[in-house]
Amino acid sequence: MRIDIITLLPELLDSFLNHSIVKRAKSKGLVEIEVHNLRDFSSDERHRRVDDYPFGGGAGMVMQIEPIFKAIKKLTSERQYDEIIYTSPDGEMFDQPMANSLSMKENIIILCGHYKGVDQRVRDFLITREISIGSFVLTGGELPAAVMTDAIVRLIPGAIGDEQSALSDSFQDNLLAPPQYTRPAEFNGWRVPDVLLSGHEANIENWRLQQSIERTQRLRPDLLEKE
Amino acid sequence: MRIDIITLLPELLDSFLNHSIVKRAKSKGLVEIEVHNLRDFSSDERHRRVDDYPFGGGAGMVMQIEPIFKAIKKLTSERQYDEIIYTSPDGEMFDQPMANSLSMKENIIILCGHYKGVDQRVRDFLITREISIGSFVLTGGELPAAVMTDAIVRLIPGAIGDEQSALSDSFQDNLLAPPQYTRPAEFNGWRVPDVLLSGHEANIENWRLQQSIERTQRLRPDLLEKE
Repeated sequence: MRIDIITLLPELLDSFLNHSIVKRAKSKGLVEIEVHNLRDFSSDERHRRVDDYPFGGGAGMVMQIEPIFKAIKKLTSERQYDEIIYTSPDGEMFDQPMANSLSMKENIIILCGHYKGVDQRVRDFLITREISIGSFVLTGGELPAAVMTDAIVRLIPGAIGDEQSALSDSFQDNLLAPPQYTRPAEFNGWRVPDVLLSGHEANIENWRLQQSIERTQRLRPDLLEKE
Repeated sequence: MRIDIITLLPELLDSFLNHSIVKRAKSKGLVEIEVHNLRDFSSDERHRRVDDYPFGGGAGMVMQIEPIFKAIKKLTSERQYDEIIYTSPDGEMFDQPMANSLSMKENIIILCGHYKGVDQRVRDFLITREISIGSFVLTGGELPAAVMTDAIVRLIPGAIGDEQSALSDSFQDNLLAPPQYTRPAEFNGWRVPDVLLSGHEANIENWRLQQSIERTQRLRPDLLEKE
């Protein structure tokens, strides 16, 4: 799989891309991630500007269509992309089923929005999909791009050590994960539930399922309504 | 305002904290952000381990309570915290009203979850609030901590250049932002709507409001149902 990220602030993604799961998946050859500086596609050679004032007035700057057009054009002339995603607070909500389906694609582009947004023509004509990671406003699309990349990459077989582990995550079966405990069995007077120390596998399994269902009903009843 | 982030992977946050809005807000003295390496609080001096196998078996490692207890204890002995947040996929959903209210706090701690989660006793006894940034699974809580920090910090007066601009964001009035356009007025045959070039302020204002309402109705009707 290959993910191309187009951004105004490539350096913001440095430590994310060079640590943790993403680094490991890259070094195992499971994923290629390329970051492209939008300013390299600016027509303004002197200041490498890629934004301008909004038509009609108002606060904030708007990302211009031209550099984005060029950046996307260059990439799509090199290979075929399954999706060209724009990170936007008003896009489709990113969730685990979407992460699953994106993890099975060959090539995707993520265009990081910034601040007051991009020229609407980018959204109308150049991208295939707008995705939001939530109902909140961020300075730019770099963190959402990192969030999506992390959620997608860890699902690629081999990316995390223990595949069983990804399958038993919250959301994969529309249930929240059960509570987890580790040593010590007692700390500060707080004890681990006896069943987990019993060594009785069937009881443990059963307790965990009950806890998952109870927790999902209490905290995220909406998940249980999904098919 | 002060934000303390407790994490297993401090280096993952480096480039986020040293660029963009957060860096600017720090250098203006608007916010103090301290990152604490959980391993510094490990009782295991040799390997600095902070996780262990789950009681009852199963895949994945669980973060131990003891180092977290010590880290939080140290911070709370130094000052009073308004919230001790744990980033968890099954927490309350982070949204703009929550970002607004957190941006008015004095001191908050964000404990980054990792992978299979933390010992449940941490959640039951040591934190005040569990927050999720969305219904998807990430490798750890560092990106959610960065997302929350970004959303919060940019709301602190003075953090972004143009305060008007934060107020007219998507979600602040339960409406999505209207489309934005910038130069050129025509690109590749795609034109900017005439009204935005008209210079007629009232018409522009009106068009933008209509667009916001129409877009919200189409994409996020749930926002209109909020009070």
